[in-house]
Amino acid sequence: MAKTLGVIGGGQLARMMIVPAIELGFEIKVLAETVGSPAKLASTVGDYTDLNTVREFAKTVEVITFDHEHVPLSILETLVAEGFNVQPNPQALLFAQNKLAMRKRLAELGVPIPDWAEVSSASEITSFIQNNGGVAILKTAVGGYDGKGVRLIRSAEDAADWLSSGQQLLIEEKVEFVRELAQLSARTPSGQWKAWPVVETIQRDGVCAEVHAPAANANLELASKIAESIAAGLNVTGVLAVELFETGDGRLLVNELAMRPHNSGHFSIEGSVTSQFEQHLRAVLDLPLGSTEGASAYSVMLNLLGPDTPNTFSERFEAAWVLENNSHIHLYGKEYRAGRKMGHITALSSKSLDDAREQAQATYNALLA
Amino acid sequence: MAKTLGVIGGGQLARMMIVPAIELGFEIKVLAETVGSPAKLASTVGDYTDLNTVREFAKTVEVITFDHEHVPLSILETLVAEGFNVQPNPQALLFAQNKLAMRKRLAELGVPIPDWAEVSSASEITSFIQNNGGVAILKTAVGGYDGKGVRLIRSAEDAADWLSSGQQLLIEEKVEFVRELAQLSARTPSGQWKAWPVVETIQRDGVCAEVHAPAANANLELASKIAESIAAGLNVTGVLAVELFETGDGRLLVNELAMRPHNSGHFSIEGSVTSQFEQHLRAVLDLPLGSTEGASAYSVMLNLLGPDTPNTFSERFEAAWVLENNSHIHLYGKEYRAGRKMGHITALSSKSLDDAREQAQATYNALLA
Repeated sequence: MAKTLGVIGGGQLARMMIVPAIELGFEIKVLAETVGSPAKLASTVGDYTDLNTVREFAKTVEVITFDHEHVPLSILETLVAEGFNVQPNPQALLFAQNKLAMRKRLAELGVPIPDWAEVSSASEITSFIQNNGGVAILKTAVGGYDGKGVRLIRSAEDAADWLSSGQQLLIEEKVEFVRELAQLSARTPSGQWKAWPVVETIQRDGVCAEVHAPAANANLELASKIAESIAAGLNVTGVLAVELFETGDGRLLVNELAMRPHNSGHFSIEGSVTSQFEQHLRAVLDLPLGSTEGASAYSVMLNLLGPDTPNTFSERFEAAWVLENNSHIHLYGKEYRAGRKMGHITALSSKSLDDAREQAQATYNALLA
Repeated sequence: MAKTLGVIGGGQLARMMIVPAIELGFEIKVLAETVGSPAKLASTVGDYTDLNTVREFAKTVEVITFDHEHVPLSILETLVAEGFNVQPNPQALLFAQNKLAMRKRLAELGVPIPDWAEVSSASEITSFIQNNGGVAILKTAVGGYDGKGVRLIRSAEDAADWLSSGQQLLIEEKVEFVRELAQLSARTPSGQWKAWPVVETIQRDGVCAEVHAPAANANLELASKIAESIAAGLNVTGVLAVELFETGDGRLLVNELAMRPHNSGHFSIEGSVTSQFEQHLRAVLDLPLGSTEGASAYSVMLNLLGPDTPNTFSERFEAAWVLENNSHIHLYGKEYRAGRKMGHITALSSKSLDDAREQAQATYNALLA
């Protein structure tokens, strides 16, 4: 009998999980928010905040996993108590959903993180800012994504609306980083763990714009060791993305976590022997993990964000493909919206990151022109 | 708007076309023979021999293409006359459906083929056998596949049943080949054409068992030139597979043709910058073709045929994956049947065909054990 996976959430991550499911002969079912979602080929539509809906969906699959981290933990805890197989489990997912819980746990594990504090008053915020050179990063404990729920502040006044909203808040030092990295890895319920080489991520307007794999001149071993501590310490299963700040003196500090395939790992579809999507399916099914070696020496990924002028890119294949380079275009089947992640491009090179980047950029320009 | 493709036939070739459709953001619809076909994720079920069924399906897509060559030409000719976009067109498909028509046309084009003749009587068969050293290959003009409709004969008596059935028959010299090759290429309606490096195919019991890409020490240029003549001369669109005999004196003779992705091209999913499935979609949409360079220097593909003891392989991933090699398993979601093509394995190597073959064989053994 074919193994059957259930994915909650019908976004591009679920869409990209369908590919290895087809290749490996797994059955895959997606519980999507809407008709016509990126993962519509394998989807039924239902409300992931409704226990009965999620339970009925869970009954049709062997293992439940996720396209996003927004499923209420109470629902997942109920399912686990009822004997359903949920990967990652809700105790681990808590740390991906709640940044305060994550910071507390990482501090316990001794993982390097920015200075931080839980804050619930203007005076606590003022005091933290004063001790940190007049500036800090304020975050809502839950609900942040792609720059949302994160704010640079210079005074308690900058935090007034969030304070009065009664949300759980944490404050962090503004790390003077030289660049941002992301360490992708995967772990099985049996405890097997494998990492890809750490990548460099380049953000624009708080959104990932570019990924260079592997990151040039990075401390691969340190990044991998941090991810291993987190994966084991938090009992993560499936793909774990650890976003890192690299400082001028070579420290790596953990910024954010995600427990699912991640934008920083899209390069692996063509660039790695095992893609993060295949690895995630293998991991949550507790099957042996695949090689994370490069299928190509260098990969560069560019996100295709909806430009200001409506463009779904699909009418521009001709211009992109006459280039005949080693770029691979991915579109997620989404309707156009400015700034929306509509797809991505991954270019490969055996020569250099620069060569890969030039190819990706040429394809990007052709799709936009 | 996303481009929409329609595929007639729900087999593994249609299944593997779904993957690039997901990646490129194309819509794909499959008209499958049965519920639960390998391509079920994108399928509706209907009878491809019924004009109305095929016409209603065609109305929902931009271009019709094929998983197999069994759709009656009369249906396709009607659709073309009504203005539907059918790729490859029925005039070309005739040569894939009818071996007699194919032989006549290839002879006209001056493409090297085995000696052959149309036969409809015992005396014609006897005479051909006598002129060819007492042995010949008899073929039914239509309906042959994986060794069916092909027979080695030494006398007219060996052909008695086919002669009395009234089928169109052709007879061919038994070529003393040293090995079999397959030349994959793709052509667009606008006439762009691109070939992959020729591969070696190894048959067992008349079924493709193994593919080595590229074929060691092969005449790449000659193979490619033959395929180009055929693609242009027959006005083929989409992927064209040309099966070739290589003789001891280095000649290449055309054995069979297929106008669709082909078993000999499965290696290209991981082994080539552009897979045959992506190339087929690009070609039938008349979009520029992708690079056919190797993503890896060497690829070996082994077909997973249903063994004598029931085994769907999906329970054996653990044994295969602990090997941690560069093998990629593909399963087609088919029910077990002895001898059935249930899936395939492609292994890649930067070192040698032998290294790729050893990896593929180790994975194969693990799946079977």
